[in-house]
Amino acid sequence: MKLSNEYTEKILTGFIRNEMHRIGIKKAVIGLSGGIDSAVAAYLTSLAIGNENLTCLLMPYKTSSEDSVSDALKVTEALKVNRKKIEITEIVDSFSKSINDKNISRVRLGNLMARARMILLYDESAKENALVIGTGNKSEILLGYSTIFGDSASAINPVGDLYKTQVIDLARHLGVPESIIMKKPSADLWEGQTDEDELGFTYEKVDNYLFRKIDERMSDEELMKTGYTAEFMKKVDNLVMKNQFKRLPPLIAKISNRTVNIDFRYNRDWNS
Amino acid sequence: MKLSNEYTEKILTGFIRNEMHRIGIKKAVIGLSGGIDSAVAAYLTSLAIGNENLTCLLMPYKTSSEDSVSDALKVTEALKVNRKKIEITEIVDSFSKSINDKNISRVRLGNLMARARMILLYDESAKENALVIGTGNKSEILLGYSTIFGDSASAINPVGDLYKTQVIDLARHLGVPESIIMKKPSADLWEGQTDEDELGFTYEKVDNYLFRKIDERMSDEELMKTGYTAEFMKKVDNLVMKNQFKRLPPLIAKISNRTVNIDFRYNRDWNS
Repeated sequence: MKLSNEYTEKILTGFIRNEMHRIGIKKAVIGLSGGIDSAVAAYLTSLAIGNENLTCLLMPYKTSSEDSVSDALKVTEALKVNRKKIEITEIVDSFSKSINDKNISRVRLGNLMARARMILLYDESAKENALVIGTGNKSEILLGYSTIFGDSASAINPVGDLYKTQVIDLARHLGVPESIIMKKPSADLWEGQTDEDELGFTYEKVDNYLFRKIDERMSDEELMKTGYTAEFMKKVDNLVMKNQFKRLPPLIAKISNRTVNIDFRYNRDWNS
Repeated sequence: MKLSNEYTEKILTGFIRNEMHRIGIKKAVIGLSGGIDSAVAAYLTSLAIGNENLTCLLMPYKTSSEDSVSDALKVTEALKVNRKKIEITEIVDSFSKSINDKNISRVRLGNLMARARMILLYDESAKENALVIGTGNKSEILLGYSTIFGDSASAINPVGDLYKTQVIDLARHLGVPESIIMKKPSADLWEGQTDEDELGFTYEKVDNYLFRKIDERMSDEELMKTGYTAEFMKKVDNLVMKNQFKRLPPLIAKISNRTVNIDFRYNRDWNS
């Protein structure tokens, strides 16, 4: 699953340029979390369209790690891109207050943060006529380790077909600051949270498994021979399946000859 | 484009029941705006799963029309479903404050409202293990007359294949209160807003056109003979095309053998 980083950089910057040209938008906006995925997306976008056309939003919550902000700043300084910092604490607290539930779980609170950030990114998009660039990697998209209509929301996503371990490899090639590459992957929704603790396995292990199963179409029998336990395979497969809804648009009840998202998509079905 | 309302009711309530059974969730949540689409969605859902399993959220903003709340209340009272009212004024104002832009347009403000409501619906969904039922009709989905990741966000949508005029017809059959059926369609994002003023044509006209073009696959030549002007056709076609992105998941840059949303969808491509 090792990629040529030179080739990957070329393909992905070309993708960003082509799609923005097709859509007819010159500027882009990215939410920088301080993590590696959004850093790589920012490096690729800045290479593709020029630093002057990229704005990065830093949107810390009161519990966000201090490293998150300082690492995001390292990216904007290295790239010399535009930057805006908007604290989301008051926004998220206004939701908590309106919901008026003292037992709100940290998962729900994390969803509020992820979606509040989506709103700010899309508002910036509308204000500046800038495209929202997605930052979710293939591992988290497949495992559903994201908030639907939150961090998974974007117009185009240059890193969504790269497994986490491939993102790390590409980050080195692109010159992403070492402090970002070295820290443990985390959604930073609460103190001490790490992806691998939450998921219960390492990215290295799950990326290898998903690559073999999905990209190489290895059968379950072959995978077991390779050494994965039935328990691990079932756990990962279930995550991929039960999070399918996060990768699809809403399901519409079919009543007509041609239904949106079922048998009408204009580029294939438009009659002109 | 006239439907049998009995048949439509049967198909759509069956859709809701089947999908909820498949997903394994017994409860549902709907954002009631006071308008006809969400009223029809609530009637269908209550018929499908029972009034005790449906919660309706009323989420007025300070500029929302008084009729919006009183009409939504008529629905919850007629159906005897659970109801919660959450004012979104403070939430939206906390966004405006954070954005700190005195010249925020009313379209951007409308998007803030639509997305704040999405957040509250999805939080209720997480809290109560309830499915978010969509309320966008086929006319608005095709014309892109909605906020992406806002009112267009849902898990399943029972009314998304019904044109606005078909929704109105079905509303009569279901017994939706007359005040809701009779008022002018409006997103109610600012005072005096009506859909038809904003779009520049009536739903009756555009629904007939879209039905002929999309459902009946009438050619542009035939449509012109039917009496539509080239100007009208171009305007509507452009709306359908330029809002295509609202109907699709984010576009992922392809770099691997199997890319999410391009050539990997587990139900078709999953290897087990």
